[in-house]
Amino acid sequence: MPDPIHILVIHGPNLQLLGTRQPEVYGKQDLPAINRLIAERAKQLGVQVTAVQSNHEGEIVELIGKANAIYRAIVINPAAYTHTSVAIRDAVEASGLPAVEVHLSNIYAREPFRRESLIAPVCRGQVSGFGVASYLLGLEAAATLAKAKP
Amino acid sequence: MPDPIHILVIHGPNLQLLGTRQPEVYGKQDLPAINRLIAERAKQLGVQVTAVQSNHEGEIVELIGKANAIYRAIVINPAAYTHTSVAIRDAVEASGLPAVEVHLSNIYAREPFRRESLIAPVCRGQVSGFGVASYLLGLEAAATLAKAKP
Amino acid sequence: MPDPIHILVIHGPNLQLLGTRQPEVYGKQDLPAINRLIAERAKQLGVQVTAVQSNHEGEIVELIGKANAIYRAIVINPAAYTHTSVAIRDAVEASGLPAVEVHLSNIYAREPFRRESLIAPVCRGQVSGFGVASYLLGLEAAATLAKAKP
Amino acid sequence: MPDPIHILVIHGPNLQLLGTRQPEVYGKQDLPAINRLIAERAKQLGVQVTAVQSNHEGEIVELIGKANAIYRAIVINPAAYTHTSVAIRDAVEASGLPAVEVHLSNIYAREPFRRESLIAPVCRGQVSGFGVASYLLGLEAAATLAKAKP
Amino acid sequence: MPDPIHILVIHGPNLQLLGTRQPEVYGKQDLPAINRLIAERAKQLGVQVTAVQSNHEGEIVELIGKANAIYRAIVINPAAYTHTSVAIRDAVEASGLPAVEVHLSNIYAREPFRRESLIAPVCRGQVSGFGVASYLLGLEAAATLAKAKP
Amino acid sequence: MPDPIHILVIHGPNLQLLGTRQPEVYGKQDLPAINRLIAERAKQLGVQVTAVQSNHEGEIVELIGKANAIYRAIVINPAAYTHTSVAIRDAVEASGLPAVEVHLSNIYAREPFRRESLIAPVCRGQVSGFGVASYLLGLEAAATLAKAKP
Amino acid sequence: MPDPIHILVIHGPNLQLLGTRQPEVYGKQDLPAINRLIAERAKQLGVQVTAVQSNHEGEIVELIGKANAIYRAIVINPAAYTHTSVAIRDAVEASGLPAVEVHLSNIYAREPFRRESLIAPVCRGQVSGFGVASYLLGLEAAATLAKAKP
Amino acid sequence: MPDPIHILVIHGPNLQLLGTRQPEVYGKQDLPAINRLIAERAKQLGVQVTAVQSNHEGEIVELIGKANAIYRAIVINPAAYTHTSVAIRDAVEASGLPAVEVHLSNIYAREPFRRESLIAPVCRGQVSGFGVASYLLGLEAAATLAKAKP
Amino acid sequence: MPDPIHILVIHGPNLQLLGTRQPEVYGKQDLPAINRLIAERAKQLGVQVTAVQSNHEGEIVELIGKANAIYRAIVINPAAYTHTSVAIRDAVEASGLPAVEVHLSNIYAREPFRRESLIAPVCRGQVSGFGVASYLLGLEAAATLAKAKP
Amino acid sequence: MPDPIHILVIHGPNLQLLGTRQPEVYGKQDLPAINRLIAERAKQLGVQVTAVQSNHEGEIVELIGKANAIYRAIVINPAAYTHTSVAIRDAVEASGLPAVEVHLSNIYAREPFRRESLIAPVCRGQVSGFGVASYLLGLEAAATLAKAKP
Amino acid sequence: MPDPIHILVIHGPNLQLLGTRQPEVYGKQDLPAINRLIAERAKQLGVQVTAVQSNHEGEIVELIGKANAIYRAIVINPAAYTHTSVAIRDAVEASGLPAVEVHLSNIYAREPFRRESLIAPVCRGQVSGFGVASYLLGLEAAATLAKAKP
Amino acid sequence: MPDPIHILVIHGPNLQLLGTRQPEVYGKQDLPAINRLIAERAKQLGVQVTAVQSNHEGEIVELIGKANAIYRAIVINPAAYTHTSVAIRDAVEASGLPAVEVHLSNIYAREPFRRESLIAPVCRGQVSGFGVASYLLGLEAAATLAKAKP
Repeated sequence: MPDPIHILVIHGPNLQLLGTRQPEVYGKQDLPAINRLIAERAKQLGVQVTAVQSNHEGEIVELIGKANAIYRAIVINPAAYTHTSVAIRDAVEASGLPAVEVHLSNIYAREPFRRESLIAPVCRGQVSGFGVASYLLGLEAAATLAKAKP
Repeated sequence: MPDPIHILVIHGPNLQLLGTRQPEVYGKQDLPAINRLIAERAKQLGVQVTAVQSNHEGEIVELIGKANAIYRAIVINPAAYTHTSVAIRDAVEASGLPAVEVHLSNIYAREPFRRESLIAPVCRGQVSGFGVASYLLGLEAAATLAKAKP
Repeated sequence: MPDPIHILVIHGPNLQLLGTRQPEVYGKQDLPAINRLIAERAKQLGVQVTAVQSNHEGEIVELIGKANAIYRAIVINPAAYTHTSVAIRDAVEASGLPAVEVHLSNIYAREPFRRESLIAPVCRGQVSGFGVASYLLGLEAAATLAKAKP
Repeated sequence: MPDPIHILVIHGPNLQLLGTRQPEVYGKQDLPAINRLIAERAKQLGVQVTAVQSNHEGEIVELIGKANAIYRAIVINPAAYTHTSVAIRDAVEASGLPAVEVHLSNIYAREPFRRESLIAPVCRGQVSGFGVASYLLGLEAAATLAKAKP
Repeated sequence: MPDPIHILVIHGPNLQLLGTRQPEVYGKQDLPAINRLIAERAKQLGVQVTAVQSNHEGEIVELIGKANAIYRAIVINPAAYTHTSVAIRDAVEASGLPAVEVHLSNIYAREPFRRESLIAPVCRGQVSGFGVASYLLGLEAAATLAKAKP
Repeated sequence: MPDPIHILVIHGPNLQLLGTRQPEVYGKQDLPAINRLIAERAKQLGVQVTAVQSNHEGEIVELIGKANAIYRAIVINPAAYTHTSVAIRDAVEASGLPAVEVHLSNIYAREPFRRESLIAPVCRGQVSGFGVASYLLGLEAAATLAKAKP
Repeated sequence: MPDPIHILVIHGPNLQLLGTRQPEVYGKQDLPAINRLIAERAKQLGVQVTAVQSNHEGEIVELIGKANAIYRAIVINPAAYTHTSVAIRDAVEASGLPAVEVHLSNIYAREPFRRESLIAPVCRGQVSGFGVASYLLGLEAAATLAKAKP
Repeated sequence: MPDPIHILVIHGPNLQLLGTRQPEVYGKQDLPAINRLIAERAKQLGVQVTAVQSNHEGEIVELIGKANAIYRAIVINPAAYTHTSVAIRDAVEASGLPAVEVHLSNIYAREPFRRESLIAPVCRGQVSGFGVASYLLGLEAAATLAKAKP
Repeated sequence: MPDPIHILVIHGPNLQLLGTRQPEVYGKQDLPAINRLIAERAKQLGVQVTAVQSNHEGEIVELIGKANAIYRAIVINPAAYTHTSVAIRDAVEASGLPAVEVHLSNIYAREPFRRESLIAPVCRGQVSGFGVASYLLGLEAAATLAKAKP
Repeated sequence: MPDPIHILVIHGPNLQLLGTRQPEVYGKQDLPAINRLIAERAKQLGVQVTAVQSNHEGEIVELIGKANAIYRAIVINPAAYTHTSVAIRDAVEASGLPAVEVHLSNIYAREPFRRESLIAPVCRGQVSGFGVASYLLGLEAAATLAKAKP
Repeated sequence: MPDPIHILVIHGPNLQLLGTRQPEVYGKQDLPAINRLIAERAKQLGVQVTAVQSNHEGEIVELIGKANAIYRAIVINPAAYTHTSVAIRDAVEASGLPAVEVHLSNIYAREPFRRESLIAPVCRGQVSGFGVASYLLGLEAAATLAKAKP
Repeated sequence: MPDPIHILVIHGPNLQLLGTRQPEVYGKQDLPAINRLIAERAKQLGVQVTAVQSNHEGEIVELIGKANAIYRAIVINPAAYTHTSVAIRDAVEASGLPAVEVHLSNIYAREPFRRESLIAPVCRGQVSGFGVASYLLGLEAAATLAKAKP
């Protein structure tokens, strides 16, 4: 395949703080370090990734709205918007792209309101609870889905 | 009346995608085409319209916050924010303007979470399910309300 | 099309009282006056209407049951039956006709039990909150749907 | 006051069966006997009563719809419609007449679904659990309300 | 037994439409054809049946209210009233007759609100999901119950 | 019957304030005036009454606990304890006396939490919404029940 | 058809106790007697039956998992597992066989938790409340479904 | 302590409208006037304040995300975001700063959806219902917390 | 103003234990020490306070019932009665005095049943989570309200 | 250990009536007889008991509030207050003493509202359903806990 | 009594692990040690016990199904099946034997789903929260019930 | 590390049917093929796996109960037991091993009852929706967790 497969990785609200705060919950690596790990894994998988962090629901909606011109799959950690954003859900569904939802922590072992994801029903699958590895496993899943897509 | 009645039309999140995606659900017309139809109907009704699309809850809040200096009524398709935005609800209520909520699809025939509108209780009325015609009928209602307002 | 398009307008329970009671809520016009406005608008839209008021759930069920032999669309204000009648819902669905639900008042700004419509999911759309104008806008929507039907 | 005060007494669905079935629950007196007792008490109270039994929600709606031309108060045992009829609720509210809800049995000591009355919020008060005496006490209350009304 | 056992079969609202609409859901046979099949099966079972269709809750209430003078059992397809009629429930309970609830479709595989029957708790049993055969099996059950009754 | 029938009337919490506050809700008569009206009605009914007001749940429990040595029926306005006191419910049930629950206001037309009475299921009946007349009608019901008791 | 139609009848947990305990609820016949009645009716219907009782959810899952190699339909009384077993539901759905759910007692007239069946939505229909006759009528339904299957 | 204690005051969505609209609910003072009162009180308390208003959830998230480099405590009126923003909750929690939630109106005396705060569980405390004084008392609380922090 | 403003401070159940138990939750100061701090702040505010502790719902009801003869405002920490006492709510509402609810701990960060206050809707505002400072800030709010009252 | 272990036994509301009413539910023994049995068992267990009955929530709160100066464990039958008293729960928790909740009847086989105990989460354990034996077994458990406490 | 009273003790799922894991929750004694303590107490009580552990719902159902040929009472720690097994509930009820439910831990102080027992309503009583002593007290209760049974 | 890391892979109920039924949902590969893929990936990861399928809740409980003697991590697809088995949850928690929950399908895009996992809160993480790849990614996560464990 001459064109490389391009995958969009979205980091949701507050993830710019990774590594510097609550490391016992979210790990010690900061976002640039995580993005480097994601890029390495992408290389191994033979795909290209673009990683974006945003705290703005509307910005994420627009990013996904334009995604299918460039990307073949989405890896998204919607963070707090997991539980409150119908707009991101609608954007993912409208994009027509295979999407993989990832979470650093096990959201099913936290407060009850974190157990419901508005985004999950429009994604292909979900990886949660493995820290940075959630991104890497999610990327692998997304790469497979992207390659399988005609 | 020397000054024309001015009505603000707001298109909520993901509506920039109209026409190009899921046309079986949302119709084949894109947003500029819909805005032209709205403008035509406005002419027939003897009112002026300004149409704005935004994916940002805060932007919509600000737009409505400034509306009553210029506009006499609001037609709003809050899209995904229909079900999640107390901020837009508060903005509409604070504006003191008659507002009409419109939806392209019949939200009562979709997922359960789409059946509750946080915005509806502070609007004058609602038109839903008629595709682009929802906007046109909603504009007609808004024009009547705007004219009736002393 | 040589045969005119015929549309059935149904007024549900207690609507025989319009104009004479609670005019601050439901307006000052009585039902015959409203029917005259509906007939006028029908003329403008190039359709024929028959308007019926009934307080009897069974009667409304039968009216709709026979509708598709004559009518091409239904405009229904189910009033109190909106919230309690599965029988009318089933009749509308069985009729196969495009139906438009209308309400004089904004049912989303009233008691919580008025916010759920059993009829809405089987209609094409809904117009609520604009007083008599709800009927007129609903008729316009119904006429468009009837004309679009092959 | 030259004109006697006229009060409408409504017996809801299945009450035509009184006396002949489940007498351990509803008492041994049949409906005509109960109506005679009501008439006697009316005489003592100096009011006139008309008692009607109907199994038809729509008929009860119409009865109440016409009531305020003749009657000054309503005593209603909505029976099964207590829990399911928004239409009767709306009719009572629209009538503008003081209404008293009565029940032969103590509805709060029965199945859970019988504990909620859709009619009660639009009545002045309720008397339940005293068999035929519920009607007599309810009539006394209604007579007082009717006399107090200017 | 010199007197034949007489069983009342009640078809609820919208069932007059059987055969002519949504045959993929409710089958291709119309109501007269179904009644003929019921009559045949009755013959085989050595019982007599009277079949009545009504769209009126009040009419069904009255039919059941008079049933125990003539009939020894009831087979009822309450259709939409299954989920909304306390009045029919009370009538069945008051009749003292063994009653069998039948449904053409499997109500447990449809919309959530169709899964709760207000009538079932006062019936002896229920047969649902077998199309016309639901009536025939229900009649067989009713005949057995009627014969067993002293 | 040589011994007069003795009936206990209990006024629950905050009722010592009657007449002096919120007269538009609870009426203009103070508690002594109401007790005089109750005593007069008792005389007409040929029964004796003792009326007690208490703001203390435990005191009301003890009053009822000792009631069946002296009284033949109870009329109780549990006021705020209607909705929160299982202890008073248990006391009423344990007393074995016929009890009548009364309310000055129509509790079904107020805040949702006032619509559920923990006391009602163990009373014979309830009278609510008629102001002071609720007590008088409730006393009449209680007198009848007390006389009927062997 | 040279091969006889084979139907699997499954008796769920505690049904080995039939006849010896709570006969007023479940009847006086023990399981072998019931199985003989089922076999007789099968003969009349021209089908073969194999009846199995198991108290083990996993065993029932496996029985159904292998069923479609031999059987053409399933009659199942899931007893207590009706309300708790997603595994049996999945097995029935995966089998692709028409299944009929039967219950000896009327589960809708018992404790609230017995009113919801996890199995019903994946069955073709349900027969409940007729004691042993529930099996016989259910078998008749299953035989018809099995014969109709190509 | 040579460095003054710096406290961040955040005004949420629609608060830019203060003073000009619904003054009977939110008071007659506009936001600059309120900020002057806050600054005065800060002076009395010996702390410094920076006050920011934003209608954008993402902006507030970022503001809080950077707060702990400069500020020692946060006073936040999340307004509409009180009830919908998990993102702001997460930001407050991640900041590690003592936060005080303030509300102009008594949110417990308004619509039911306003009674639940997603932000409150991660704040130290809450002051609501006292108009501008809520800010002043909240600032006093925040100052005490900031000074107590090692 | 010649007469000093008198404010009633009420400490609810178990608060007599303050200082001696669970100091990590409720602080190390005992009730007399807290009352001294309240008295000092009252002096600064130019008001007089009377502080009362009671474990008896009925006693608190009576205290508030008599309050408006002497006091101009109430500061109340209803403690456990916050979540269970309709009687105290009714007393506060009937008093007509401005009331301020205070809590030592942040009730929104504790067990779910502590998040609902029955008292809050009838108070002017609430201060919670600041330990003894909740009383002091609440007193300041109450003093302002008392002074503002004509 | 020279000092005997002292255990407080609390009988909640309505338990003064034991033996004289509803003996089929609560047994034939009156409270003094039960206290004698408890005292006997205490002797066997080598502990001292003081048994108190109170119908007053506030009194029970105070009793427990002072308990840890004298007692080493609590056995409490909160009766009706089991389901409504947060104040007793808080008192038990604040006491720091091991507490055992006992019930004469099986509260899980009664009305749904009796199935939730507000007290249970702060007790060490619960014994219910064995009549007087619940107290004796509960005392045994409490004695063991008291002895184990350093 | 020549024949000794025989009592069946059932240990539910995961209890084979006792003593070796989570000793801080479930104690340090393993199951054989606990069974020895139970046997000792049985001796003191003059009864015989047979103790069985099973992880299989079906096995427990069968064990109980055969119990009444040999045993006079059941002591059961249903462990995880407490909250999920209708089958065990039905088996206990069908057995006709007095049953005592025991739990090592206080299930009312753990996750919400552990607070509801499906088994409790068909047992005579429950002992929970005292570790191994729960079995010993439960056995004592069961022995008393078994001896009392004619 | 001389000893290889051993990981237990558990396939829950109905998974023996994989590949032969509903391949459009669960894929075309049968269980042996899937196990081969798992074994291959294990080799790449440098771990050993043992894969077991069981339809029996009790069997799975026992398997996990013995796991920590041999295995260092668990990968479990609990299938239907995901939603109903507290016993498996307790077993996983008691094992002390890191566990990874996997699902072939996206359980968040299916029936509502499939959205709640009783097992997830005691696992480290979850992978769902990627067909066979869910196992492979889950194994990778488990291997990492097993290696990280001291």
